Amino acid sequence: MKIVKRTPLKRVSVIGLGLMGGSLALALRRAGLASHITGCGREVLVQRGIEMGALDSGCQDACQAVAESDYVFLCTPVETSIALMSQIAPHLRDGAVVTDVGSTKETFAAAAREIFGAQAAERVLPGHPLAGRELSGLEHASADLYDDCVWVLTPLSDDAGMTDAQQALVSALKTIKARVVLTTPQQHDRTLAYTSHLPQMVSTALSLTLAETFAADDPGLQIHAGGLRTMLRLAASEPKMWEQIAASNQQNIAAALERMESTLKTLRESLGQPEFRAKFEQAREFAKFTRG
Amino acid sequence: MKIVKRTPLKRVSVIGLGLMGGSLALALRRAGLASHITGCGREVLVQRGIEMGALDSGCQDACQAVAESDYVFLCTPVETSIALMSQIAPHLRDGAVVTDVGSTKETFAAAAREIFGAQAAERVLPGHPLAGRELSGLEHASADLYDDCVWVLTPLSDDAGMTDAQQALVSALKTIKARVVLTTPQQHDRTLAYTSHLPQMVSTALSLTLAETFAADDPGLQIHAGGLRTMLRLAASEPKMWEQIAASNQQNIAAALERMESTLKTLRESLGQPEFRAKFEQAREFAKFTRG
Repeated sequence: MKIVKRTPLKRVSVIGLGLMGGSLALALRRAGLASHITGCGREVLVQRGIEMGALDSGCQDACQAVAESDYVFLCTPVETSIALMSQIAPHLRDGAVVTDVGSTKETFAAAAREIFGAQAAERVLPGHPLAGRELSGLEHASADLYDDCVWVLTPLSDDAGMTDAQQALVSALKTIKARVVLTTPQQHDRTLAYTSHLPQMVSTALSLTLAETFAADDPGLQIHAGGLRTMLRLAASEPKMWEQIAASNQQNIAAALERMESTLKTLRESLGQPEFRAKFEQAREFAKFTRG
Repeated sequence: MKIVKRTPLKRVSVIGLGLMGGSLALALRRAGLASHITGCGREVLVQRGIEMGALDSGCQDACQAVAESDYVFLCTPVETSIALMSQIAPHLRDGAVVTDVGSTKETFAAAAREIFGAQAAERVLPGHPLAGRELSGLEHASADLYDDCVWVLTPLSDDAGMTDAQQALVSALKTIKARVVLTTPQQHDRTLAYTSHLPQMVSTALSLTLAETFAADDPGLQIHAGGLRTMLRLAASEPKMWEQIAASNQQNIAAALERMESTLKTLRESLGQPEFRAKFEQAREFAKFTRG
């Protein structure tokens, strides 16, 4: 008797073999969700991915990588993913589902509509797993990167409906322990400007402010503690990815930064005044939601 | 033969039984640095301190607590410590050394000069251990809070010289594994405005910015990740302590905040421009020093 293993996503290709793509391949593999995983990336990465047990095969050409795939995961920064989506479109199998892991969704969604026209909602289900980011590269990939992480999906159809193949993708993401949240590309980008992009810009700006104030060998810099280390942790993030996020969500991020500038000014003016305490307590109370 | 235990600090009193004072008592105890530790604080805290093995005795009156002490540690927020220093001054033993753990040093140093006049440099050695702060209270005290923490001392004499009794304090702090750094009160406050107070204000302002943007039950708030949690960690700090820091280092903090506002504006204007990448990389490079 032949045992048929259930592999809901069948043949998968992962385009881009960094932290996100590598971890995804490992997670799909661990959960037995794919019958075959092809990777696309530099030769050395494909080789390493096969050695790690993440990939069954791989190549350097995205069009070739997707030709046999039922699901295509674009795991590159957002502008790169848009360019790749345009290249692979003519090479996709009928019924193949394209998704991505990009940090902004409006430009990707717009590109999908332009490339696939009336078929966009059926062919493309934009996604964004909110998983740890200061370490990058396949060498940091881990099968449990997506455990308990919020994985946003932004369906392109007006009623946010999904095809059976897309529903299978949602189930697969839940199987790898992601918490799937549905919203629109527009709402995603507006929210993330505050909950992700603003914190990053603030950490980067704090580091720049210190860099402008102290020479790198200033002995005063030894007088710091865990608080500064914490607040500069995000500043170590990958520049290429953030350059693309900044460009693709510019208006929302600018609006968030303007609000932050204005809040800092108000807080500055309250130093030594009774309002300071009230503001501090309001901030303390609100911050609790991240520990919920 | 009687074995005489070496207890370099002899009789110690710890005024203020919170995280800092409690941890200090536990650390001195662990290292066998004191022959007797008296605590001063609310009755329930004194009781708990004795039960924890941190204190030998205790009372509610600071003047009584210091009467027999060779070393007095003021472990309260900075304005409270200034008021207490003034109260205990007439009750100190000859040769007793007063130190503190306050987060700013200029107002404390000025108060010491006013209270002790020409004897200030000999009687008072202002201090500031940069130890973890979001959790407060004796219940979180730990004998290893100061392990590897920077402990700034700001001698009041013009040549930064110290008495033998003060040198013994320095040795004791090194024994509890603190990294002692000497500077002036003025330099301390100017530096800390950037390396400690600015990061705190930025975390608080980020939380306020989000509080102004989202209702507490906004479903969008579930779309966040570790980055936001990290950046809001400091916002959970103790309001009372920060109110006093803000008031006692107002000018330096205001200057740091103004620089931060201006950096955020510049970063905002660089979104989508080539300069963004250069700024991001500069911040990334500089941030490495905290991991050094």
